Amino acid sequence: MTAGETVLEEINCSPIGFVRSPFTRATGTPIQPIGGSDVEATVEILEEYAPGLSDLEGFSHIVLLYHFHHCMTTSLKVKPFLDDVERGVFATRAPVRPNHIGMSVVRLDRIEGGTLHIRDVDIIDGTPVLDIKPHIPRIDCPGKARVGWLEGKEPLVGELRDDGHFLG
Amino acid sequence: MTAGETVLEEINCSPIGFVRSPFTRATGTPIQPIGGSDVEATVEILEEYAPGLSDLEGFSHIVLLYHFHHCMTTSLKVKPFLDDVERGVFATRAPVRPNHIGMSVVRLDRIEGGTLHIRDVDIIDGTPVLDIKPHIPRIDCPGKARVGWLEGKEPLVGELRDDGHFLG
Repeated sequence: MTAGETVLEEINCSPIGFVRSPFTRATGTPIQPIGGSDVEATVEILEEYAPGLSDLEGFSHIVLLYHFHHCMTTSLKVKPFLDDVERGVFATRAPVRPNHIGMSVVRLDRIEGGTLHIRDVDIIDGTPVLDIKPHIPRIDCPGKARVGWLEGKEPLVGELRDDGHFLG
Repeated sequence: MTAGETVLEEINCSPIGFVRSPFTRATGTPIQPIGGSDVEATVEILEEYAPGLSDLEGFSHIVLLYHFHHCMTTSLKVKPFLDDVERGVFATRAPVRPNHIGMSVVRLDRIEGGTLHIRDVDIIDGTPVLDIKPHIPRIDCPGKARVGWLEGKEPLVGELRDDGHFLG
């Protein structure tokens, strides 16, 4: 398609805070939250945004959207961690995607001031956070889903660690 | 917290495509995908990004990240559709959040070239799409979750329509 009448504007985002986690580089970091089971970390929300956190503590899980700030390249075809075949990047969770936005559902333990104590973390220290949403199973989990090339490989997701092969 | 040693950079995003849906304005649009059950729409991916779509068709559900482009304001406290009490914006899915990024899990029917045919849509026509990820229940659905202020109100999510009250 062409953009037609739609204006192709740039969309500017600013961090609302930063992740503080034990993972200081991509290599060795779990590749998904279930691989980071029980790893504790925090999200430090900038003071100006802290009032937006009220009522969030009632949710046991939250969705973090963040910037893959260690990733400098974009590839439309990638070899995912769980496969030897090249896949379209939108059929994977690889960081080398356009816009470099990552998403993780993590467990929320508690909130102290502007600090979220979270678990099950697969996110590198210093990662800029763009948004926090409550995880709502009725909305986010439509039930039985086909998982394409991941069929039968899903159980392995928790076993793997980042080998740094997406670092550009 | 203060940003400390972390550089507060702007993060620039560009649309990878646009939603074409029957909803031309916020008012009347379902407030979540389950309210848009069986509503058909498309995502038209820009030609340059289409190679990234390969292997996506095997997934029955996808996560769309998009820009709430009709929303011009940010509020840290909002009255959600399902409540009469003001809540922190990060404890809601309201569009008036910092960075105005929306997230919907939708059903993927099929892909033709750069066009994704999707269902269960709650997204306004012309919405710029920032990312597409495969929905992977093992990663995205951690099981039983507490839903805070939404407890007992979740079943109503599908009934409601946008009344335009977040339009700034």
